[in-house]
Parts: sequence; C-alpha cells; structure tokens
Amino acid sequence: MTAYDYDLFVIGAGSGGVRAGRVAASLGKTVAVAEEYRFGGTCVIRGCVPKKLLVYASQFSEHFEDAVGFGWTVGETSFDWKKLIAAKDAEIARLEAIYKRNLSNSGAEAIEDRAELVDAHTVRLVKSGRTVTADKIVIATGGTPNPHVALPGYELCISSNEAFDLPELPKSILIAGGGYIAVEFANIFHGLGVEVTLIYRGQEILSRFDQDMRHGLRKAMEDKGMRVILTDVIAEVTKSPAGHLIASTMGGETLAVDTVMLALGRDPNTDGLGLEAAGVEVDELGAIVVDEYSRTNIENIYALGDVTNRVQLTPVAIHEAMCFIETAFRNNPTKPDHELIATAVFSQPEIGTVGLSEEEAAKRYAELEVYRAEFRPMKATLSGRQEKTIMKLIVDAESRKVIGSHILGHEAGEMAQLIGICLKAGVTKDDFDRTMAVHPTASEELVTMYTPSYRIRNGERV
Amino acid sequence: MTAYDYDLFVIGAGSGGVRAGRVAASLGKTVAVAEEYRFGGTCVIRGCVPKKLLVYASQFSEHFEDAVGFGWTVGETSFDWKKLIAAKDAEIARLEAIYKRNLSNSGAEAIEDRAELVDAHTVRLVKSGRTVTADKIVIATGGTPNPHVALPGYELCISSNEAFDLPELPKSILIAGGGYIAVEFANIFHGLGVEVTLIYRGQEILSRFDQDMRHGLRKAMEDKGMRVILTDVIAEVTKSPAGHLIASTMGGETLAVDTVMLALGRDPNTDGLGLEAAGVEVDELGAIVVDEYSRTNIENIYALGDVTNRVQLTPVAIHEAMCFIETAFRNNPTKPDHELIATAVFSQPEIGTVGLSEEEAAKRYAELEVYRAEFRPMKATLSGRQEKTIMKLIVDAESRKVIGSHILGHEAGEMAQLIGICLKAGVTKDDFDRTMAVHPTASEELVTMYTPSYRIRNGERV
Repeated sequence: MTAYDYDLFVIGAGSGGVRAGRVAASLGKTVAVAEEYRFGGTCVIRGCVPKKLLVYASQFSEHFEDAVGFGWTVGETSFDWKKLIAAKDAEIARLEAIYKRNLSNSGAEAIEDRAELVDAHTVRLVKSGRTVTADKIVIATGGTPNPHVALPGYELCISSNEAFDLPELPKSILIAGGGYIAVEFANIFHGLGVEVTLIYRGQEILSRFDQDMRHGLRKAMEDKGMRVILTDVIAEVTKSPAGHLIASTMGGETLAVDTVMLALGRDPNTDGLGLEAAGVEVDELGAIVVDEYSRTNIENIYALGDVTNRVQLTPVAIHEAMCFIETAFRNNPTKPDHELIATAVFSQPEIGTVGLSEEEAAKRYAELEVYRAEFRPMKATLSGRQEKTIMKLIVDAESRKVIGSHILGHEAGEMAQLIGICLKAGVTKDDFDRTMAVHPTASEELVTMYTPSYRIRNGERV
Repeated sequence: MTAYDYDLFVIGAGSGGVRAGRVAASLGKTVAVAEEYRFGGTCVIRGCVPKKLLVYASQFSEHFEDAVGFGWTVGETSFDWKKLIAAKDAEIARLEAIYKRNLSNSGAEAIEDRAELVDAHTVRLVKSGRTVTADKIVIATGGTPNPHVALPGYELCISSNEAFDLPELPKSILIAGGGYIAVEFANIFHGLGVEVTLIYRGQEILSRFDQDMRHGLRKAMEDKGMRVILTDVIAEVTKSPAGHLIASTMGGETLAVDTVMLALGRDPNTDGLGLEAAGVEVDELGAIVVDEYSRTNIENIYALGDVTNRVQLTPVAIHEAMCFIETAFRNNPTKPDHELIATAVFSQPEIGTVGLSEEEAAKRYAELEVYRAEFRPMKATLSGRQEKTIMKLIVDAESRKVIGSHILGHEAGEMAQLIGICLKAGVTKDDFDRTMAVHPTASEELVTMYTPSYRIRNGERV
C-alpha cells in the first residue's frame, strides 16, 4: 500500500491529461485529474474542435457561389454569428460532458480546481485549500496564446481564445502572425464575410512548411480578397474616438479595423504552478524540460503535451500519455515517437503535409526527385472558381523512399492522414507508381506522376 | 520499312485507345486512331467525368440544408437542369478537344470514322469506304449499356447514356440495377430533387462490396427519402395515356414515374466489328478474349479496356495501354497488374474501397481481425444531418497485413486512393498503429482503432 492519497495526480484535463488519468484508473490505480477551467483542454474547448466547426461554417459562402455554375439559383443568404457560436458552445458543452463522464467512468476523480505543486509529491488545490499527495504526478497544463505585452495597445487585442466567443462578428479584422492559427482564422473570418488583413514579419506565411505550400496558399488567400502584409509587424494599436482600432505598422502603414487578433505563438502554462517548489526544471520559454520518456528532472513527475513545447498537437499529447502509461505503470519504458507526424492547416484550400519540405530535404539528402503537379480541381471547371491544387512528392533518389508529401487543396488534411501511413511504413515511389488510380479524384494525381518534375543534387535544383 | 500503312491502328478513342496511340506515336511509330462517336470514350463523354460533375451539382442541396445549423439563412433555391447540362456539355467538349489535340500533337492520325476489321491486318473505314493496313491492331472499343431487350417496354426506358442528356429533369425516376451506376444516378437525381426509386433483384445493393458498405449506403439512401426495392425486378414498362411510364414488377408492384432508367450491366462493343473476319475470339458475352498481355488469339491484334470485360475502369484501361506499349513496342513484355485496385462509388456519402471485403477475406484467410468504426461525422453535429461514417480494416491475423479497407463517408474516394498505396505496398496494421493521427479528420479513425472489433476464425465470427 502506498502512503500517498493517489497513485497518480494529473494537473490539467486536456487531451493528454485526461488520457493519462483515464487509462491509469482503468489499470486500477487511484487517480485524480484537476482542471481549473474546463474539461477537454485547448483542443475541445478553444482549439481544434471549435476551430473546425468554424471552418465548416465559413465554407458555405463558397458553396453558395459555386452552386451557380452547376445550374443552381441561390436566394439571398445571410449569416448570424451569434447563432453559430451558440451552436458551437452547445456542441463543446456536450463534448466536455463526455470527457468528464469518461474520466469518472474510468474511476478517476475529476477535481474542478486549480492545482499547484507544493513539493515533488504534494499538490495544493487552490479553491478548496485542500492539500493532497501522490506517488506520481503528471503536468499536462497545456499552453496559452502569447499576449505579446511588449506591443503598445496589446490589451486592445484579442487572441484565438476570444475569437471563439466574440460577442459580434467584426466587419474587419487584422490578424498578426503567420502560423497556422493566424492563417486558419484569416480564412474563417474571410469566409464569414469579414474584411481580413494578415500581417506577418517573415518573407512568407507558414515558416517551415514546404515553400510551394506557403506561396500557394498565400496566393490563394490574396486571390480571394484577403490582404497579406509580409515583412512587417504591428508597432502600436490604439483606439479611435469612433471606436475603431488603429494599428500602425513598423513599415509605416495605418490600418483601421474593428478587431486586432494576435496569433504570435503560444506559451506553456507554467506560471505559478509551484514548479520551483517541487524543483521541476523549465527552459527559457517556461516549458517543462523532459527526457525521452516525458519525465522531468524530478523522478516521479512527468509532463505531457503542449506544456513541454515539443510538438503542440492533440494526437501527440495523447500518444505521449499512452507512452507514459507504458513507462510508469506497465513496466515497459516507451519513448513517444515524434517522427513523421502528418499535419493539416484547415485553411481554404487546406494544406496537408507529412515528412520533409523540399527545402529541408535538400539539406539532408544528396539527390532528390521532386514530383509536382499543379492543376485546377474538377469542381472548379463548372464553378468557375479560380483555384489551383498543388501536390508534391519528395523522393530520396538513392533509396526511392518518399520522404515528404505536401498537398494544397480540398480535403488535404484527410489525404495527409493516409499518406502519413505510407511514409511511416517507409513506402517507395515505386509503390506509389504500382498503385492504380481512382478516377476521378484529386489524389489520383499522387499515383500518376511517373517522371520527376525536377531533381535536386547537393542542394541545387537541376 | 513495313509494308503496312500503319505500324499501329487503334480502334476506339477512349482512355485506353488514345493512350496506346499517343505513346506509340511518340515512340516514332506511324499510328492511326479511329473513333466513330466522340474522342475521349465513355469516361470523358458519358461516364466518369460528366457523372462526377452531376454528383457535384447534386451535393449543393445538402450544403444548403447543412448551412442552417451553422448560422446561415439561405434564400429560396432553384435548380435548372438545362443550365447544368449545357455547362457539362461545354466542359466535355473542351476535354474532347484536348484528347484530340494530344493525339495529334503526338503525331498520331485521328480518324473520325467507324473502323471494322477485314482481316488480321486490314481495317475498313465505314464512312469513307477507305481500306487501310496495319502491322499491329488494338481494339479498344469499350462497352455500352445493356438495353435489356428481353424486358417488354425496354424501348421506353433510358440508360446512363441518355441520363446525361435528358431534355428535362424528370419529377420521378425508377432506376433498375444495384451496381455502382444505378446507385450513383439514384443519388444524383435525388440530390437534384427527383423522387427516386431503385429496384434491384438482389438481397442488397452493390454485390461484391463489403456487406457493411452495402447495407450502410442503402440505409443512408433510404434515410434521405429514396425508396429501395430489393429482391424484385421490373416485369414490364408501358406508357399511360397521361404520358407517365407504368412499371409493373415481378413482385406485383405498379409504379408510375416520368422516367425509367436501366442500369443492368454493360456489354462489350464488338457487334459488327469484323472480329470473325479477322479470326478474333470472343467469349459468350461478346467480350474479346485476351491473354495476360492483352493479346488476342491473333498474334498482331490486342484488345484493351472495357471491350475485354476484365476490370471496367478508366485507369485500368490506361494501365493496360501502357503495358501494351512495353510489350509490343519496347521489347519488354509486361502484364497488366489487376490486383488491389482501389475504387469509389460516388454516392452520397461515397464508398471508397480497396482489397478484400470481410466476406471474401473470411473465405480465404484462417483468421481475420476486423476493425470497424461507425461514427457521426463532425460536420453533422451542427448540421443536424442524420448520417454515419463507417470505416473498416480487414487484417490477416497471421501476417498482420491489411488486406481490405472499406469506407462509407464523405471523400471516401480520395481516401481509398491513398489507402490503395498502403495495401499495394503491403503495409501492416502495426504501420497504421504507429502513424500519428491528424486531428480533427475523419480518416484519423483509421489509425486509432487499436483493438479489433471482432475476429473471424475459419469463416466464423468470434
């Protein structure tokens, strides 16, 4: 028998924390999971799930436009933001309840309170004032949008947190940032009829993605009427007497908009968590430092998910949780596998990607074959929509292995998921070539590119 | 120098014929391709391509309905069939011109005439009366809907050929058949507002597909309001004085509809082709008999695509054409590979499938693991649409290889294309398990089913 109140205490009921708590409890451990906000974490409450619901909502305006080319006449349409947000909130509440119920059903105790470490085995519950002890502790407190307090007027701006619950749909929005959150919200708001400007300090949006994806999506966004300002940043935000926000940029522009949204990275949620008291090490960004098994420098304390700032994705946090269970409770030390993670940007069109970008692959491999197709999707032939799908395969010429695949187009996220299996299994370009096309699809392009579009030798395109 | 007019004469300018002619010409051969109807063949003119355009058109009615749950108000909508068909026709004409141009650009001669064999090396062009000779001949004349002349009143019915060009959209349609053409057109017409009844002699639609797909799609169609009559066939079709068609069934039903469409299989186009004169063997269905290299019993005559009644799919015909080129012109005898062909049914929702159905796999393997997920797609949570996505993986328990995958859901066709690569490469269930999910997608379900839903041992579910 343990001398502690719990075998496992989990701080944070997001994707990683709930999974760890739930599975540990199902193994017969005494488990508590504490959450100060809402069960489900970023993904369910103000991340992936509501984001995708907003994406769906924002796609209908293009459906209405596209229908005309197919013989439809569509009467006047209008959009009610409050109705969407209410529907979204109801769905999120439903999912939150499921998260809680699953946790309870597993036998874990759900504690609605903020938990802070007192020492390596002791946790204080802030609201109740209670102090409990645990053999093992998992920190899975996630992350939060960086408020960018260095920006004069930052307090006038919103982050993605608030974007999900704006009382009114703005007529115009300025979004700062070039990452996937900035890009997705730009597309969402545009689809809902908002005048969108995106401002990003870099040369191109979505750094670290394949250059064709970055350029292709930015061009698609501009073609739809979004404005994208590159190599510039907001210098100051003020409020005009008329109630507008005035953003002045370093480049000398002045923009008057209803809303300014900052999407400038996310910070690990480690402030005031008692990490010092427990002796848990954090890095210069405040992220908890863990070893390959998600273990902190304190032997009985682990950390999972966004708070460790490894790969900030829901499935990764869940995977880390499952590995933690193997390591800590099944005597089977298991390292999370962070290689070849497929991801999607739910822009319009989407980006789906797995493996190395052409640029990154060029640094690592002596010779690459690059297969690239750019085409108008079939639906656009009748809708008249000016858009291009881009598909790329990056192949190591020596082994013939496909080491990267990048798609800009409708349903690219679904495609990336499945190409992810191919790359994880180490399939070769010959396997792609041997696969019969499914006609007519967009993805058949991926199995019918028989000749390289170009090669890259020693980093040089030839 | 050859004594013949052409190195290669191709009869039929569909997907297979054009590919064979074009590539042979690009190799420096003297080539002619004769076509009696329109360049592009079934796929382009009255098959895959116009079908998919009609599918897109028919999806908008659900988009309009779905929008409401996402906060949209959509004014009155109406649909103009003639406008759609005109747009479709313009697109098909554009594609046909591209087919012709590509053929000419390759150096092949495009002959707009019906060609019939006179002997093994001689072809007569019916309209012009000209007779030409060729070293090698490819027959790629495709197939045509079976008119079912045994049915009293068959001449009152249409086939898919006419469905693409109906002068008016019918108010009601009875479709006979349970194959993918019948099912796709049922969904198309339903989406365009037509009252649809499907009648099929079998116990369930889509024979040879996985049972879950068959049942799941039929249920989805019925839930939408289509009527599906099983284990019954049309006995007679007559015309009522009011102009309706009256179909009486063997089961004793009488149905009054505007249009009856027969989708009861396709026949190879071999009538009057001069096959006897040339000594080319056909089977009891009239399909040209070929060996593994697509060669007929006559040494210099090959046949490709639907006319051989092997696998009636565009990409297969193209693949057979490429193999023919290797065999006949590159001294590299190559057998077409007909194994593990992924296919799609463009119903709503779609079916995407590759490999063995559960039922077929159960006959061939000692032990199977079946992974099955049935869930409501995320979009349906807000649209309120009652629909289910079904995903299945059939795994050989011994080798762990995934030997079948079946999906009923949106974009299942795109998914099947990419899972097709996995199966062709022989990936295992462990490769699926090692792949990180892309969240939120539908296809992530395929990589997160860790425990078999059930097993099948020696054909028995356990």
